[in-house]
Amino acid sequence: MSGSQHDSLIAVVGATGAVGRELLNILHDRGVAASRVRALASARSAGASAVYGGGSLRVDPLDDASLHGAALAIFAADAAVARTFGPPAVARGVTVIDNSSAFRMDPAVPLVVPEVNSAAMTAKRGSAQLIANPNCCAAILVTALEPIRKRFGVRSLTVTTYQSVSGAGIAAMDELAAQAREVLAGKPAQPSYFREPCAFNVFSHDSAVDSASGLNVEEQKIIEETRKIWGLPHLTITPMCVRVPVMRAHTLVIALRLESPARYEDLRVAIGDGEGVQLVDDRATNSFPTPLKAAGRDPVLVGRLKPDPAFPLDADGASDAWCVMACGDQLRKGAALNAVQIAQRLGLVPA
Amino acid sequence: MSGSQHDSLIAVVGATGAVGRELLNILHDRGVAASRVRALASARSAGASAVYGGGSLRVDPLDDASLHGAALAIFAADAAVARTFGPPAVARGVTVIDNSSAFRMDPAVPLVVPEVNSAAMTAKRGSAQLIANPNCCAAILVTALEPIRKRFGVRSLTVTTYQSVSGAGIAAMDELAAQAREVLAGKPAQPSYFREPCAFNVFSHDSAVDSASGLNVEEQKIIEETRKIWGLPHLTITPMCVRVPVMRAHTLVIALRLESPARYEDLRVAIGDGEGVQLVDDRATNSFPTPLKAAGRDPVLVGRLKPDPAFPLDADGASDAWCVMACGDQLRKGAALNAVQIAQRLGLVPA
Repeated sequence: MSGSQHDSLIAVVGATGAVGRELLNILHDRGVAASRVRALASARSAGASAVYGGGSLRVDPLDDASLHGAALAIFAADAAVARTFGPPAVARGVTVIDNSSAFRMDPAVPLVVPEVNSAAMTAKRGSAQLIANPNCCAAILVTALEPIRKRFGVRSLTVTTYQSVSGAGIAAMDELAAQAREVLAGKPAQPSYFREPCAFNVFSHDSAVDSASGLNVEEQKIIEETRKIWGLPHLTITPMCVRVPVMRAHTLVIALRLESPARYEDLRVAIGDGEGVQLVDDRATNSFPTPLKAAGRDPVLVGRLKPDPAFPLDADGASDAWCVMACGDQLRKGAALNAVQIAQRLGLVPA
Repeated sequence: MSGSQHDSLIAVVGATGAVGRELLNILHDRGVAASRVRALASARSAGASAVYGGGSLRVDPLDDASLHGAALAIFAADAAVARTFGPPAVARGVTVIDNSSAFRMDPAVPLVVPEVNSAAMTAKRGSAQLIANPNCCAAILVTALEPIRKRFGVRSLTVTTYQSVSGAGIAAMDELAAQAREVLAGKPAQPSYFREPCAFNVFSHDSAVDSASGLNVEEQKIIEETRKIWGLPHLTITPMCVRVPVMRAHTLVIALRLESPARYEDLRVAIGDGEGVQLVDDRATNSFPTPLKAAGRDPVLVGRLKPDPAFPLDADGASDAWCVMACGDQLRKGAALNAVQIAQRLGLVPA
């Protein structure tokens, strides 16, 4: 990677949102100088300032001109903003990493989790390109299971989610805190962002439910994006997405069928050697992944490994059916961290 | 049922606990006079009083003599108390309904969810017997699925739980509230009852994990008790039990395979006609079961019906693989209510 790239301008679009703030935290932690970062947001937020390490950045309004001169723009805005400003920026030589769903399923756009499929980024290094950052659950799911998939193959999986409210942004996080205070004070919860009360409650994911299939949008994304990232277009996935009153890390409970059988110790070794994951699995002390343990951290925590009791073990004590629990920070591996890791692989951010 | 039975004494053992309090609420709601109810607890709680409707009951210590003269004793204590005091009481003519795990898997003891298998109570009406009340998740699970099982059969199921803290008792409920206050005040959570922080967190169920199978005790109970209640000893069940920061109702997310295919409308009708359940399933408004909707209520809420996308629909639009969400009050259908319903079937409590 060239020195010039490491001196070049990085634009963060949607810098005042939950993912945008986390992008700035991570860029600062990676040693990117404040002078190299341009914080952008909608006209509504323009004039605000954004925290950058111990200092702050002025937030400028996003317009056609504001990405000029940037080598990299990381979009943490909605799909409409990405569609309007992303492709023109790429045409002007800016590499765009987009957190929205706008381009994820576009066959011409790589959908990347660096630990899994950085090879999908085939554009010549140094030439501007558009790369999509996956849905938070899909990113955490494939990161958690990649060490297992690489060694044993994955044939099908059922994934049930315990999704934090951060996936719905800062307003949702504020709502959870405010509502919890109300309930603890004996007042009724006042739902505003979510249709259902979120404090001391769980509810089926708030994305729209398809009237024909019964799948909600989050579940559709998990199916489509997981297949695309792994290059397994026929992988069968049964997703069931639920929100829980947790601030910022998602928990996935997964029942999976492998291509070839594995023993408990095999899976522990695979995860222990895996990239971007950390084994948390102590049966004696009942110590397993939790969202609080994962919050604010880079690795996806993986554990609570048990052979699916619906299937017998083979003579070697191995099974092709396993249950797994994974927790990953939705704002980091599920969004901002993964985007920065993509930029690192492209040499646009220091490792 | 005889008038004399309706005038006879009912003992509630463990009257100061979360389930005991709910038993008293339900007995009061069923019109049982305070003079007919004897509230019992360990010596530690004796001398306390227990709320009964607008009034209160004196709590007496449980000893060999305290069940004398009762027609019915509902035990909401631990397995050791049930083993010590349950069988001697039955021998003296007291019908015992036990909420603990002490006798559930005893082949001589019926394990009963009245909507499902009240026929298992074969003792002659009026003769004293011992009946086990199931684990909360098993009770909610079979109640939720019974309308589907009766019409279409159940071949296998994967059940992932979102369990409220009430299953661990009043101390756990107090801990959740206290911890949430601490966290909202910016202080670190101080786990005491649970090993993991429970506010704004989720964690693998706190029961002991078997070092060989990897199943925790809660998961083992779900497998064994569901099979026993349904009389399906070979039913394959994949349970994964997790606690969530919810006060008192459990949520189950279930992927199930049926013996024969069903259409969406078939399942809606089956649940709509079912006993002890209420259909909550509106895709257009994203309205599905939640623990807050189920809390304090009798029916188990069932909905979020969708065909498992891993399996194709047949030519009639039917599938033998479905996903379902169910919420039931852990303290009611998952414990106290089910026990009272058993007593009602035996004519020992007015319907």
